[in-house]
Amino acid sequence: MPRYKITIEYDGTPFVGWQIQDNGPSVQGLIIAAISAFTGEKVAVQGAGRTDAGVHALGQVAHFDLTSEREPETVCDALNAHLRPHPIAVIAAERAPQTFDARYSATKRHYLYRIVCRRADLALDRHRVWRYPRALDVSAMHAAAQCLVGQHDFTTFRAADCQAKSPVKTLDQLDVERGSDGIRVTAAARSFLHHQVRSMVGSLVLVGEGKWRADDLARALAARDRKACGPVAPPDGLYLVRVDY
Amino acid sequence: MPRYKITIEYDGTPFVGWQIQDNGPSVQGLIIAAISAFTGEKVAVQGAGRTDAGVHALGQVAHFDLTSEREPETVCDALNAHLRPHPIAVIAAERAPQTFDARYSATKRHYLYRIVCRRADLALDRHRVWRYPRALDVSAMHAAAQCLVGQHDFTTFRAADCQAKSPVKTLDQLDVERGSDGIRVTAAARSFLHHQVRSMVGSLVLVGEGKWRADDLARALAARDRKACGPVAPPDGLYLVRVDY
Repeated sequence: MPRYKITIEYDGTPFVGWQIQDNGPSVQGLIIAAISAFTGEKVAVQGAGRTDAGVHALGQVAHFDLTSEREPETVCDALNAHLRPHPIAVIAAERAPQTFDARYSATKRHYLYRIVCRRADLALDRHRVWRYPRALDVSAMHAAAQCLVGQHDFTTFRAADCQAKSPVKTLDQLDVERGSDGIRVTAAARSFLHHQVRSMVGSLVLVGEGKWRADDLARALAARDRKACGPVAPPDGLYLVRVDY
Repeated sequence: MPRYKITIEYDGTPFVGWQIQDNGPSVQGLIIAAISAFTGEKVAVQGAGRTDAGVHALGQVAHFDLTSEREPETVCDALNAHLRPHPIAVIAAERAPQTFDARYSATKRHYLYRIVCRRADLALDRHRVWRYPRALDVSAMHAAAQCLVGQHDFTTFRAADCQAKSPVKTLDQLDVERGSDGIRVTAAARSFLHHQVRSMVGSLVLVGEGKWRADDLARALAARDRKACGPVAPPDGLYLVRVDY
């Protein structure tokens, strides 16, 4: 059975998330349907990251097996043809060895969280960024974020329904910087807990507003208590940017 | 009558364009309706640039008069409240002298045209950029574009229905460069003819594909003939970025 690795871009706004659920269209479900329309086969599709409803991807990765060999370029074009008009695009397809697993072979996941500080509604970036109505101190956010980098028990920044075996994760990078298109928070780790990036961003915004100091963030982490977390940032600003293998 | 200058951002996708028309919702019409909902007054709203259907604005400018004095911040918030859920946002409002005219006082208009070269459909930038399925030679495009800079008769790059008195315009800038988000064509002039930017971009893409050489672009300009123009680029990639006064 030839295995294929695909790289996928999507606008998460109209979906219940990556994973198939009963309550609406999912990216995974639409990709399975597109493969079925193309090959007639009902296959399992494994993604690298289970993005939530409203979360976007610039480079989600998934794998699946077909019964017969197809040209990767044909796979790409055929899936895109069957995915229309949904805002999901297969931007690359390649043959992968049977040992490749989009979820378990991943060595690093890269996320981006975008924030735009302004009072007026967003016209062009609606559903694409978190609009925050007040100014934020980006350097204070970046400095405070550094206490989260490294291996920690991230219980504070973990959703109640998180299914990971352990709350201990190693965060490789958490940078906050001002770009031409607003504030960009970039996070990288082998794996993340459920809601971890949005929970960290929500707490960092408290620092940016001056409601928390860097110490408060460190104390929240040390508390290992979900109740110590700031408000969880909305999904709109979050992007799964890239997965390394 | 106090005059107000407002700066407006919009996603042009759902509109028939800036200007009020019989065949669908326009940005101008919705702003007039929002002012009326706010003040009870039916006023005239003059914009700096009459963007076409599907063309976006990051910084369109308009002016209007009210019968009574209002705080600019109140004008901004009230218009945004009444413009919801349309993708139109008033990002700034200020008092302006009676001599200020959004259209006639403008000294320079800045446009951006975005192109992304890729075969796969666009998920996140759909309706926001021109997806071009083949690679383009950006340096050849930039070099060729320079023959259009300066004062010329732009009849070749002018829509048949253009209402400008003269086809002679001075183009101050036409740069083509590769950015992190694709190819960016930036154009600046005191004023443009109808479809001028999209006509120039369409011809530049012929250069980028190697179908035209820089000479061909210069000859098209010199022809002063609409038939000498390349295909007009779609509205999706065009943004009115800023208007100087």
